[in-house]
Amino acid sequence: MASTQTPPFTHRIGRIPIRFLSPQQPENRWPSTAFVGEVVPFAATVFREGHDALGAEVVLTNPDGSVERHPLAQGAPGTDRWHVDIALLQPGTHHWHVEAFADDWETWLHAASVKIAAGVDAELMLLEGAQLLERAATLAADTPAAAVLTDARAVMRKMTLTPAARLAVAHDARVVAALTAHPLRSLLTRSEQLVLRVDRTRAAVGSWYEFFPRSEGAKQRKDGSWQSGTFATATKRLPAIAAMGFDVVYIPPVHPIGLTNRKGPNNTLTAGPNDPGSPYAIGSADGGHDAVHPELGTVDDFVEFVRTAAKNGLELALDLALQCAPDHPWVTEHPEWFTTLPDGSIRYAENPPKKYQDIYPLNFDNDYEGISREILRIVLLWIERGVRIFRVDNPHTKPLHFWEWMLREVRIQYPDVVFLAEAFTRPAMMQSLAAVGFHQSYTYFTWRNTKSELEQYLSELSHETSAFLRPNVFVNTHDILTEYLQFGGVPAYKVRAAIGATASPTWGVYSGYELIENVARPGSEENIDNEKYEFKPRDWAAAEAAGKSIAPYLTTLNRIRAEHPALRQLRNLHVHSSDDEAILVYSKVLPGRFVRSGRSDGIIVVANVDPHSARATTVHLDLAALGLTPGTTFDVKDLITGDRFRWGADNYVRLDAFVEPVHILRIDYPKGT
Amino acid sequence: MASTQTPPFTHRIGRIPIRFLSPQQPENRWPSTAFVGEVVPFAATVFREGHDALGAEVVLTNPDGSVERHPLAQGAPGTDRWHVDIALLQPGTHHWHVEAFADDWETWLHAASVKIAAGVDAELMLLEGAQLLERAATLAADTPAAAVLTDARAVMRKMTLTPAARLAVAHDARVVAALTAHPLRSLLTRSEQLVLRVDRTRAAVGSWYEFFPRSEGAKQRKDGSWQSGTFATATKRLPAIAAMGFDVVYIPPVHPIGLTNRKGPNNTLTAGPNDPGSPYAIGSADGGHDAVHPELGTVDDFVEFVRTAAKNGLELALDLALQCAPDHPWVTEHPEWFTTLPDGSIRYAENPPKKYQDIYPLNFDNDYEGISREILRIVLLWIERGVRIFRVDNPHTKPLHFWEWMLREVRIQYPDVVFLAEAFTRPAMMQSLAAVGFHQSYTYFTWRNTKSELEQYLSELSHETSAFLRPNVFVNTHDILTEYLQFGGVPAYKVRAAIGATASPTWGVYSGYELIENVARPGSEENIDNEKYEFKPRDWAAAEAAGKSIAPYLTTLNRIRAEHPALRQLRNLHVHSSDDEAILVYSKVLPGRFVRSGRSDGIIVVANVDPHSARATTVHLDLAALGLTPGTTFDVKDLITGDRFRWGADNYVRLDAFVEPVHILRIDYPKGT
Repeated sequence: MASTQTPPFTHRIGRIPIRFLSPQQPENRWPSTAFVGEVVPFAATVFREGHDALGAEVVLTNPDGSVERHPLAQGAPGTDRWHVDIALLQPGTHHWHVEAFADDWETWLHAASVKIAAGVDAELMLLEGAQLLERAATLAADTPAAAVLTDARAVMRKMTLTPAARLAVAHDARVVAALTAHPLRSLLTRSEQLVLRVDRTRAAVGSWYEFFPRSEGAKQRKDGSWQSGTFATATKRLPAIAAMGFDVVYIPPVHPIGLTNRKGPNNTLTAGPNDPGSPYAIGSADGGHDAVHPELGTVDDFVEFVRTAAKNGLELALDLALQCAPDHPWVTEHPEWFTTLPDGSIRYAENPPKKYQDIYPLNFDNDYEGISREILRIVLLWIERGVRIFRVDNPHTKPLHFWEWMLREVRIQYPDVVFLAEAFTRPAMMQSLAAVGFHQSYTYFTWRNTKSELEQYLSELSHETSAFLRPNVFVNTHDILTEYLQFGGVPAYKVRAAIGATASPTWGVYSGYELIENVARPGSEENIDNEKYEFKPRDWAAAEAAGKSIAPYLTTLNRIRAEHPALRQLRNLHVHSSDDEAILVYSKVLPGRFVRSGRSDGIIVVANVDPHSARATTVHLDLAALGLTPGTTFDVKDLITGDRFRWGADNYVRLDAFVEPVHILRIDYPKGT
Repeated sequence: MASTQTPPFTHRIGRIPIRFLSPQQPENRWPSTAFVGEVVPFAATVFREGHDALGAEVVLTNPDGSVERHPLAQGAPGTDRWHVDIALLQPGTHHWHVEAFADDWETWLHAASVKIAAGVDAELMLLEGAQLLERAATLAADTPAAAVLTDARAVMRKMTLTPAARLAVAHDARVVAALTAHPLRSLLTRSEQLVLRVDRTRAAVGSWYEFFPRSEGAKQRKDGSWQSGTFATATKRLPAIAAMGFDVVYIPPVHPIGLTNRKGPNNTLTAGPNDPGSPYAIGSADGGHDAVHPELGTVDDFVEFVRTAAKNGLELALDLALQCAPDHPWVTEHPEWFTTLPDGSIRYAENPPKKYQDIYPLNFDNDYEGISREILRIVLLWIERGVRIFRVDNPHTKPLHFWEWMLREVRIQYPDVVFLAEAFTRPAMMQSLAAVGFHQSYTYFTWRNTKSELEQYLSELSHETSAFLRPNVFVNTHDILTEYLQFGGVPAYKVRAAIGATASPTWGVYSGYELIENVARPGSEENIDNEKYEFKPRDWAAAEAAGKSIAPYLTTLNRIRAEHPALRQLRNLHVHSSDDEAILVYSKVLPGRFVRSGRSDGIIVVANVDPHSARATTVHLDLAALGLTPGTTFDVKDLITGDRFRWGADNYVRLDAFVEPVHILRIDYPKGT
């Protein structure tokens, strides 16, 4: 059976093995993602047979074609894992790979140092060293380093000196510099190449505020009928939102609302004549997804609203809800886009035996390409009207391959457009929506309230899924009012806001949060009199004047976020410990080399997540994770209260939820760190 | 910017998403592996938008081209993970993928059952059901099922019956059978295809026994010189090894041993005239890796030794140690295969400042293809001499790409040849050696002795790395005598053997273990008077007669392994708990459908890993992992002592290490389970 031909010398492992590159998506089917300004930990497993010295670099090709080389440093002993943190600065598609090499000089230097000290093979080692210097001098030919290396070689061979003296030339600063510039590498090995998509910063960093434009300026007449708020009246609310420090305003769908089977207050089946209907029941004789509800104004009014928001420093996020009221124009123009039942009727949205008779779901399988093209047309239309962020309603009820296609098509034409996936469903779907292209994702944050839940979940968001999923942690939405908020009072509202604003680079609030609106529809986790079905004008000024608003607290949180770049990173969250089961501790640190000032930025958050208690305990910090050496003590300043403390590895803390439930502590790093 | 052309409708996610196929290697660079007879858990994450019913199948193409379809079942709620266990029965390359589909009948049946019970849309649902039955009848055309389905359709439409009665036809056994044979599937989606390499059973399942042929029958003459044992004298030991139930004999290198710088007893630098030298210092004037040491016999004697072993039911595993004594023929024929130093000498193996002057390492980078071809020639030569298993010495000191190439070339010509990697080094290298093609691997087992160490490590071997790494857990080797064995006496030797033999499908013993040889060279984890450097004839019969041998215990262990197929699986180990920090509990179960008798095979091992103690505690079993329903009680029989117990979820256990440190309990499953 033995073959006499020479078999081909092919292999899938490199001369120096390089494996498990990070960041990458699980499965590596789509690029991993980052955002402009993000500091991303790169890593690879690099090793070789035997004991010779190795080196490795990340080679990063930016979208503009420029190439950066970042040396990797060896991590924990025995892991063969090499690391380097890199700040991504250009939006667009990056390509990167790892190069590994034998570090011939380092291998020799280690052996020579040990053997000459032991009196073994001294002459031989120095001869080898001289040969290496000669090789380096050749590499450095025609540069000033050549002479340095040639001189060093002569010293290395100078038999009149002691071996130790001859070896010492290896440590001469000019020799070291020459060898750094002209390194002695061999067995150069390249890994496979990976793709990293860098989005604009807003894809991952932002403070969101949701409100219903029709409620702002809405007025009820004496006969019980309503005058809807409009884009024009809603515009008046924008400066206050901006003043609280938010930078994105998200508004529910602005399209005509169906009349057939319109829902009444609290999701009742029949609407009265004065009920405005849910903006998620889209489409009427006034038009469909490309139209604007006449009660809100015109398309021009919408465009003006977007412009005014921008002037206030606010980006607009528009809802994209792909379903239709029974009177949506598509129902007559494209009945094939829905499911026709054997009796000729169109299938309502349903969860048997429940039926949602104000909504017809699209059936993508009936005319996949036709529906897809129409949705793309609509999205591009709103982009042309000034929208750069879409909050996509229930994306998990549409086929994933549609999203992959649609998001890619939009990205090609408008790489700055951001899509947020509003999917509250099982992890496989939520993670896959992010994997195929959504820029950010709603999360389980609202349902993670205990210390252990938060420790686990914040770590998952920051580390396990951060190569492809970017969280937008809303503390409430118009559909979510958790029991924690219903029964926790002001302390609960403060705790959740403080954690949301500091733990995630993007967080969000639905209007009314600042007024502690915490009455639920009985038996539900949703506000009573849900604004989806009603006008809900609020008297913001009166509430603030009466001290009944936590708008000042939210303003403080957004100011802290603005002032601390460490809080605008995703992957730098580190959980520390405390001795109390309700005292959550985490930090976010950005090393000085990534901060404009050159000084490290570090925040420690200590939160009492039991809003009904005052608690005292000891907090234990992992000083290394803070970039501090063991035993260090340092000053911290509470950015909520202004209090200052001297802290170290173990610190007494008392947090009374009824006073201030959360410390947000700035670490005062000494200069140069 | 908007494009007017239709963008291509391409995507990398399927209509029904299928992700995270298992088994596969991390990185999916090489096929995952299994062995003939192995029961492998297959899994995939399958889900879709909305609530409609799904189904999925593994489609497995065997090496002979036959195709098997295995329906996947949904796992834990919320995980979207689907599972099926499949027994691999053919050696060779398998290809597999997952197919997912919408289960249209199941979707309808769920909705119809709920809605008709609630009195909603009854007529409509039955009409839909009738349409589905018509579609199925068309699929079943020209089969007997067609009439069944057509009749069912008629019942479904029979307005004279109640809706409940019409719906009931959906559950008629003949209708169910017809729909199983002609399923109503849509949106069929295929995953990517993966490769699975199935090796012969011995690649993963075996009881190994190592001995030095030269010691068996060696005699010291009165003048102190030795008459070496030979293949002929060593043959006499084979029946006893076979009688203990071992099925592989592993012998150190059989090649001529170098004279230059030969090592003396206990690794001393100078050998006396009567010292045989280490068989790992390969090569002399008598030849190199292709030759046989004249003191052992001739190549023909070797071939005869292999044949006799086979007649005793023993396979031979030959050592492959790729390094040379200074007098190896390659040193003069191919000096370029070594590293020549500036002074013209050849570099010894070294770990500076230590030098190993009896060994020259090969330098693969000097003539990679020349060295590789020569090693392949030598391996093929020994294969032609009858060897089908190689134990590769220190593979981690040779380049990994060489192994990938060499193992592939051998596999193409001799797919039944097995290579064991003797690498004790860092995890990245050990796992990568397995990844690139080694069939089995030495492990850290000898250094994992406490309960928590073993729980963690046995789980890692059985689950985390089992898709590509198969453990060979030696309890000792000629180079490893751990402190645990040095100081634990007979109980330690029994505990380690019992765990090795039951936890891993392949385990091994180095001769002398049965005699409790436990004296170490001071300060080392190695036997004193290491057999590598000396003749070591043993009087087996006298030891057994004096009751000083645990050979009977080893025999019992191997008999239990032979009688219980559950112990010859890798991935079925499950760790249970006990209330004592030294009482380790695990089980291995093989469900009846994979056992020839049709009855489930289950073993529970309870080990007191503190060899200096008697301990009593409560053992807590995960009954579901044993294939038993909660609350079940069942009989177990201790296969070491013959004792019987009635067990349930929680069980009192007392293990006196000085009597029997380990229970190996057979579960007496009722018939039909």
